[in-house]
Amino acid sequence: MSGPDGLRPGEVAAGDLGPADGPALRVIGRARTPWGPEDCPKNIHRARERGAPAILEIDPVFAPALSGLAVGQPVIVLYWMDRARRDLLVQAPRHVDGPRGTFALRSPNRPNTISQSTVTITALDLGAGRVTVDALDCFDGTPLLDIKPWLASVDLPPGTAD
Amino acid sequence: MSGPDGLRPGEVAAGDLGPADGPALRVIGRARTPWGPEDCPKNIHRARERGAPAILEIDPVFAPALSGLAVGQPVIVLYWMDRARRDLLVQAPRHVDGPRGTFALRSPNRPNTISQSTVTITALDLGAGRVTVDALDCFDGTPLLDIKPWLASVDLPPGTAD
Repeated sequence: MSGPDGLRPGEVAAGDLGPADGPALRVIGRARTPWGPEDCPKNIHRARERGAPAILEIDPVFAPALSGLAVGQPVIVLYWMDRARRDLLVQAPRHVDGPRGTFALRSPNRPNTISQSTVTITALDLGAGRVTVDALDCFDGTPLLDIKPWLASVDLPPGTAD
Repeated sequence: MSGPDGLRPGEVAAGDLGPADGPALRVIGRARTPWGPEDCPKNIHRARERGAPAILEIDPVFAPALSGLAVGQPVIVLYWMDRARRDLLVQAPRHVDGPRGTFALRSPNRPNTISQSTVTITALDLGAGRVTVDALDCFDGTPLLDIKPWLASVDLPPGTAD
């Protein structure tokens, strides 16, 4: 249950942070998913279970930056959770045992509402700037920020890479 | 060898993109590393080989968001490469066999110059907002954007998780 400020028991929000004054992002495209606020899966694991692919529609000006990607390749997608809160410092998600700091959670609510998942490219149309991936856990129309190739040497925890 | 526009043979830059007009970021702190433009390792793998830890200095207002993190935990750090180019669509890094699209590379030069590495927390001072990690491949003073717990179910390529 949330209070009038939208906070659950144990949650802490920052006071007035003022407007964000860091660098401005460029939206490189939009995610096309089957999900809206009512039925969006809570994480990529659950999105994958539902078996629906997602499409990354890349703005034509950035489409040439897709060259070199390949079907079957794992990539990290960064997306901007534009409906999430940016002021939550401590959160109490229902699935977690007690309140926890935002940086210890994967909640979309964070100072920079960037979410990321590692997904597999299942189809590619470079000319149209369309990248189909196996799943994505965000609302249809979510702004995309980046696509990066997943690399074991960078993305696995230290000591577990080959 | 680069031309007068700073481009190597085969590289492609976007025309005038205008100012970035997406959401503004919040800088949550700064990376303290031993590295400057002359000696910065090219990737986290090489940074790790040099054996120097890095410190994530988190702004006091965001320090409460660190609660729940633990020494030994793998985390993903997102940082803003503030000296990188945002207009490169196709790049020809020296270590890669021919030009490749930006989204198929981990180059810091990208529409949103967000880099990320998976690192291990080696020390924590929650009161001071200081997180020591085993390594980081960026200049001293680099703006930090986020810390996320690394999760196998989200961050491993599909099909490789438990």
